[in-house]
Amino acid sequence: MRTTDAHIDTDVAVIGAGPGGYVAAIRAAQHGLDVTLIEKDAYGGVCLNAGCIPSKAYIHAANLAHEATHATDLGLRGDVEVDMPTLQEWTAGVVSRMSRSVEKLCKANGVTLVEGTATFASESELDVDGADAAPETIAFEHAIVATGSRPIEVPNFPFADDAVWSSRDALGAETVPDRLVVVGAGYIGMELSTTFAKLGADVTVVEMLDDILPIYDDDVKRVVRSRAEELGIEFSFGEGARALRETDDGDGDGDGDGIEIVTETEDGEESVYGADRVLVAVGREPVTNTLELEAIGLEPDENGVLETDAEGRTDLDHVFAVGDVAGDPMLAHAASHEGIVAAETIAGEPAGNADGQVVPNAVFTDPEIATVGRTEAEAAEEGFDPVVGEMPFRASGRAMTADATDGFVRIVADADGHAVLGGQIVGPDASELIAEIGLAVETGATLEDVATTVHTHPTLAEAVMEAAENAMGQAIHTLNR
Amino acid sequence: MRTTDAHIDTDVAVIGAGPGGYVAAIRAAQHGLDVTLIEKDAYGGVCLNAGCIPSKAYIHAANLAHEATHATDLGLRGDVEVDMPTLQEWTAGVVSRMSRSVEKLCKANGVTLVEGTATFASESELDVDGADAAPETIAFEHAIVATGSRPIEVPNFPFADDAVWSSRDALGAETVPDRLVVVGAGYIGMELSTTFAKLGADVTVVEMLDDILPIYDDDVKRVVRSRAEELGIEFSFGEGARALRETDDGDGDGDGDGIEIVTETEDGEESVYGADRVLVAVGREPVTNTLELEAIGLEPDENGVLETDAEGRTDLDHVFAVGDVAGDPMLAHAASHEGIVAAETIAGEPAGNADGQVVPNAVFTDPEIATVGRTEAEAAEEGFDPVVGEMPFRASGRAMTADATDGFVRIVADADGHAVLGGQIVGPDASELIAEIGLAVETGATLEDVATTVHTHPTLAEAVMEAAENAMGQAIHTLNR
Repeated sequence: MRTTDAHIDTDVAVIGAGPGGYVAAIRAAQHGLDVTLIEKDAYGGVCLNAGCIPSKAYIHAANLAHEATHATDLGLRGDVEVDMPTLQEWTAGVVSRMSRSVEKLCKANGVTLVEGTATFASESELDVDGADAAPETIAFEHAIVATGSRPIEVPNFPFADDAVWSSRDALGAETVPDRLVVVGAGYIGMELSTTFAKLGADVTVVEMLDDILPIYDDDVKRVVRSRAEELGIEFSFGEGARALRETDDGDGDGDGDGIEIVTETEDGEESVYGADRVLVAVGREPVTNTLELEAIGLEPDENGVLETDAEGRTDLDHVFAVGDVAGDPMLAHAASHEGIVAAETIAGEPAGNADGQVVPNAVFTDPEIATVGRTEAEAAEEGFDPVVGEMPFRASGRAMTADATDGFVRIVADADGHAVLGGQIVGPDASELIAEIGLAVETGATLEDVATTVHTHPTLAEAVMEAAENAMGQAIHTLNR
Repeated sequence: MRTTDAHIDTDVAVIGAGPGGYVAAIRAAQHGLDVTLIEKDAYGGVCLNAGCIPSKAYIHAANLAHEATHATDLGLRGDVEVDMPTLQEWTAGVVSRMSRSVEKLCKANGVTLVEGTATFASESELDVDGADAAPETIAFEHAIVATGSRPIEVPNFPFADDAVWSSRDALGAETVPDRLVVVGAGYIGMELSTTFAKLGADVTVVEMLDDILPIYDDDVKRVVRSRAEELGIEFSFGEGARALRETDDGDGDGDGDGIEIVTETEDGEESVYGADRVLVAVGREPVTNTLELEAIGLEPDENGVLETDAEGRTDLDHVFAVGDVAGDPMLAHAASHEGIVAAETIAGEPAGNADGQVVPNAVFTDPEIATVGRTEAEAAEEGFDPVVGEMPFRASGRAMTADATDGFVRIVADADGHAVLGGQIVGPDASELIAEIGLAVETGATLEDVATTVHTHPTLAEAVMEAAENAMGQAIHTLNR
């Protein structure tokens, strides 16, 4: 349902067709509202086009090639390499099919699509700078801002420099650099370090803090860090990237000569790292500068975040913000969830989505990390008397048969009544296994519920059951605490 | 806690240390009972030593090698082969570590281990024919029979013949036969056909029925059957194996000459298949002949099954039977579950495990199948008004990035109140994903509970959430019914 009218009226104008915006648009339309979705770039947003999806394609290919080449203990014989242009092309194909699919789903649900950049003209009107066929103005009853985020630049490391990669550039690489320096050991830095190390790069990670992945428990990240070190990744903690220099290999042709990254500790001590590329992954910032928010009197906070209430409302009752633009957690599924809550709130049919929701978190490193709900410490801080159960994957038959025994499942529950409060998993398929604990937390299920649910043998999911049994002193395949 | 006394007294004598027996023994000991576990062969039973575990190791290695070699679209370049003796050795190592671990866990929980074959001398005493250190007799208050099952032989296809493989023989193969005929398209036949096809064998499956995997919905098994056909597996349905002939390749040395398998339809039409090996996988039968059950007046039914009540009691109140010896479903996790129920019943501390439990089911084919609870038809038969939701993996971002888009998630719920009644999954990691639906069925969770639980993006588990949304007409990534 494209339109060629210069002006259109709509119940809900959604700005940005990423996982926050398009999901909000579809759900609002499912509730019978007239919805207009404005996108300036590509349907699916950063997640689909330059984030979650292409990174998972790269991770899958790198894992498969690396694992097949290194599974010599299992009898595999062969050397598998990855042809980067082909991987690129295949990934682009996946992205393009998914992006077209988002467009089709929007249309099938009756959402009007507008290609262009929207700015607020007033509290009820958007100006659109867009394609010929796009309207010039859109009058709205409600607006949902879902403009997402962009990678933060580090001074002296401009993304415009060919040697400096954003995550988007890294996921568009047609060759694997011999030497890659990664600035930032957050989830993007760690996922891409691991991937490029498996693809053959010598990877050094430079991080201001003193460890990787700050939000996770020490024993969780230790598993990922040791594995990264086994893959040859070197870590330099407590150092910030300060300067980038081009180097000359002396052959006089002036290109392909490489770069040097200069870092500095808090005490001013400098180090220099030679490289061919530097990936800057120090975080993401909300995109609000395109919106002309001053026209409606909204001002982002000092981090650029549009603050919202539990339903996603900004300071204006009829203007909502969802996804990265509304701040942490900057996760696609959090954005989609917020989009659904905002859409249902606008439709006047809240399905209870906004209450007590727990948002899981995953990092697709080797092995994966996934968490949901509360850690033991968080539960204690909230006044619970937490009881904890664990199951190491080295005691899991399925993990042993896949030669993937690093890590564990931890489940946290309330000692009084045994309601499951959260879980932390580091290990094979952690991102999938966390779903069961998420459902348990969401529905108030108990350790007994998880422990007495028959789990298929042999599966990794049995470890969730065993962790629940362990919390009650009844584990079969591991010693009880 | 081995013993060298010629006679011992015990609260609970458990016969057989497979996944039914050792789990029962450990749980009974955890409840403070004195437990004696008698095993004649290897700790962990068939599942660990010659079934679930070694088959998953073979499947993992075959999948990895096959996938890495065939992922050319993704840019992978290389040829990976599997060195069978190394795979064998690695698998034997996994099995041996796990078997020792079962032994240790039993001891750590205070279970007395006896190596030998137990027969009933009376309703309160077992004779043991065992190692020098084993007692000659064991007096018991309660007995748990957990003697498992063995592969059924087909007339004219004796497992003693080198050319005839049981599943155990197949999992001990040091070479891949050029031509393999598999008799039986049940789960063992299908798992091993797929594995050997990926390892390079020409595989023909002969099955008496008119399709593979009789217990699953047609659209579920269609996905697995087409994939098997893509792998080059040929199917001959409606044929029973009748005769085995040796053939002569004419080189006069009399060996390596191959075999012919003669089959017959119901109408008496014969076919002949040349092969190097034939794997007979037509089912398993309970092992009761070693027990001298007549001494206690128990008689298995016509299929060799010891009938039991919901707690696992046989016709004798103090004699229980768990696992394959107690009949379908012959699944390791069903056995463990039955073992726990029996142990807790004997301890007088039933944890409610016996009530309303649903036992999931998985087949580790390509792709996997996993089901739990009721199908749509079963729900309707039981008087529910079932509502069904589906999510195809071709609409899953995670599945697309792993190039594994065959199959779907189906969730079945009660239209009245939306309680989840069951689920069927065919697709990547189905055996893991079914756990969440299992927990939902077990705890009486609703479609809303599953749909509003935030699922990590991008994961395959999102498909479970989307199927629940689809059942309510609110799916985002697929068109609603």
